[in-house]
Amino acid sequence: MEKFNIETWSGLSAGGITAVPGFKVAGIHCGIRKNKSKRDLALIFADKMCSAAAVYTTNKVKGAPLTLTMEHLKNGKARAILCNSGNANTAAPGGLSAAMEMVNATAKELKIKPSDIIVNSTGVIGFPLPIDVIVAGVPKLVKSLSRDNIPAAEAIMTTDTFAKSWAAQFELSGKTVTIGGIAKGSGMIHPNMATMLSFLATDCAISPEMLQKALRESVTVSYNQVSVDGDTSTNDMCAILASGTAKNPQITAAGEDFDKFLAALNALNLKLAKDIARDGEGATKLLVCRVSGAGSFEDAARLSKSVISSSLVKSAMFGADANWGRELCAMGYSGANFDPSRVDISFSSVMGELQVCKQSTGLDFDEDLAKSILSEKEVTIKVDLSDGKFSAEAYGCDLTYDYVRINGDYRT
Amino acid sequence: MEKFNIETWSGLSAGGITAVPGFKVAGIHCGIRKNKSKRDLALIFADKMCSAAAVYTTNKVKGAPLTLTMEHLKNGKARAILCNSGNANTAAPGGLSAAMEMVNATAKELKIKPSDIIVNSTGVIGFPLPIDVIVAGVPKLVKSLSRDNIPAAEAIMTTDTFAKSWAAQFELSGKTVTIGGIAKGSGMIHPNMATMLSFLATDCAISPEMLQKALRESVTVSYNQVSVDGDTSTNDMCAILASGTAKNPQITAAGEDFDKFLAALNALNLKLAKDIARDGEGATKLLVCRVSGAGSFEDAARLSKSVISSSLVKSAMFGADANWGRELCAMGYSGANFDPSRVDISFSSVMGELQVCKQSTGLDFDEDLAKSILSEKEVTIKVDLSDGKFSAEAYGCDLTYDYVRINGDYRT
Repeated sequence: MEKFNIETWSGLSAGGITAVPGFKVAGIHCGIRKNKSKRDLALIFADKMCSAAAVYTTNKVKGAPLTLTMEHLKNGKARAILCNSGNANTAAPGGLSAAMEMVNATAKELKIKPSDIIVNSTGVIGFPLPIDVIVAGVPKLVKSLSRDNIPAAEAIMTTDTFAKSWAAQFELSGKTVTIGGIAKGSGMIHPNMATMLSFLATDCAISPEMLQKALRESVTVSYNQVSVDGDTSTNDMCAILASGTAKNPQITAAGEDFDKFLAALNALNLKLAKDIARDGEGATKLLVCRVSGAGSFEDAARLSKSVISSSLVKSAMFGADANWGRELCAMGYSGANFDPSRVDISFSSVMGELQVCKQSTGLDFDEDLAKSILSEKEVTIKVDLSDGKFSAEAYGCDLTYDYVRINGDYRT
Repeated sequence: MEKFNIETWSGLSAGGITAVPGFKVAGIHCGIRKNKSKRDLALIFADKMCSAAAVYTTNKVKGAPLTLTMEHLKNGKARAILCNSGNANTAAPGGLSAAMEMVNATAKELKIKPSDIIVNSTGVIGFPLPIDVIVAGVPKLVKSLSRDNIPAAEAIMTTDTFAKSWAAQFELSGKTVTIGGIAKGSGMIHPNMATMLSFLATDCAISPEMLQKALRESVTVSYNQVSVDGDTSTNDMCAILASGTAKNPQITAAGEDFDKFLAALNALNLKLAKDIARDGEGATKLLVCRVSGAGSFEDAARLSKSVISSSLVKSAMFGADANWGRELCAMGYSGANFDPSRVDISFSSVMGELQVCKQSTGLDFDEDLAKSILSEKEVTIKVDLSDGKFSAEAYGCDLTYDYVRINGDYRT
């Protein structure tokens, strides 16, 4: 039993925000970044007022834009999402005023209220936001709104090596409903927090309360199960707009329609979350840890996340070294409940599957096969606890020389 | 206010276990390691029965020797500490029997009861302990007991690059009391958990209960404030023997004598803890984070440990990059209480001190000076919270290419 299994869900496509009817996006270079070929300002705009929801970093130090967005979402409504890259607008002089200025300039151009805009920033912290170039860029940003998803997906990137966009489609009472999203992972030209952003849009008719509930549940099994380096950013945000133009009967309570919406949202968020892990700073491979046979979902989630967060596990995976004692060790300090004497561990990839530990005791295994399995671009660490019926997965990447290089470089 | 300030305590020397009258030690190569120039079996032996205490890893997966030691220390008494390197005897077939075998062989040679021996192992996990070579080596081990501290300090090393030995001396009611210790940090030829071991001896007269209390308190401010890579080992142990031959009035309750003993124990353990951090796998520098002005000791300890544990902080320190937003970020996700808008941050080393953040806002600072400060072998990150009167320190190291290399290598 698990909260959600992506393998049983079909309906995903490589779309993005603009797979959803009624949403336009834009992404331009306004001048926050020195490199003129890098976009640094993104906008998502709905053709009507939306139910809106967001979840935020749990970091006690929060970027100024998050404070403003929380205020704006008190009524559960919004029409636009605005985000720059290149500067996090966090712990910087005049941060809140700068966030308000960029929102006001955009609201004026879009002819909507400032409080209907969700705003965020991602990049280095502690430096004043170059608000003048942003405000000067807003008219161009709004003019370039289109049904092409890519510019916005690129404009929120930092050291991401590819843009992350997915869409999910399903039926509700005979109506086709679409959810699309873009996300970014870790790193910057001026290296910084592994800031995670995800912006989602849907034409589903759903109340703000149920939208918030679905988003919160979905983030638990997707983004919150990702770790690149264990550092929770100051600016993490996942936000969603729901326009209702799919004309399904509005979801206002738990039930079958809510469950279908949640399944699609989970499928979408898992795809984006795995892309974030795959593209972690310096990563050469995606690590999935699948824990089954746990006594509760929470234990399975905590154990799998502890394994993919371990620096020792991540280094061994970089070296394709089947040093499974590190997985067992990371489980042991996770704080989760399990029987430490009954753990089975296998490694799996397209090259095959190999059990290396049975009932917490090492097996003799074929080291050459182990190496060929672990040398692949996507490796799954399978853990069985013989302890219950719950499962969960977590997503990470290997720890490489390039992670150290990227993050040891000078900011300037 | 802080639990203990090492700078106000004098009486440390570079001694080790054999700075304490009445203790002999030995360290030999018995054959667990392939490399014959590496010692792999250590013994500490007191000339009379001692009060004994130990603290253990909090990892739910514990090495077999820890289980046996816990049993042996139920009566608060012991005379010897036995430890091998090269194999952790954890998650390996027949682990408990192997631990008992090595203890029985040693007890027989020493002519003491097996239950008076504290035992541990450190090294790769999941492989059977080569008990035959250990048992065969015990007579030689016991014969080589001497008042030379170094062989034992070396025999517990894994990829440590230097042996770690310190001693502390003070007076109790006119009697000279000595505490000596050896410790090991992180890494192996077959890379493994950042296993931490610390073995201590003293001639102080102190009851087992007060010895346990002192050890627990001291570990909180020393070893528990060290992080090399965030991975809590399965075999961590800090154990102490107290022979009472200093003939001070036995410490059996809290009071002035207990406080003096605790201060010396703290000084010794802090020295060993800092050496462990300095010699972390691949490290090029020691990082100290000193948090002052906290509302409680627990908050200060948690904040400082979160800062020195952050992969982003550690990578920036390797690159001598004054990217202080990472310190603020790591404080924010620590779970500790503090006012995130009132944080001051400075960097300090023998090259000087430089404030980079005031009231959680970036200052303009001299990047060249920052670089020269951060390029030193020992760097202190000073954080002031303007929030209370409590302080604490934590000890770590930078994250380097060599950490990835050491831990990405094959086990064989």
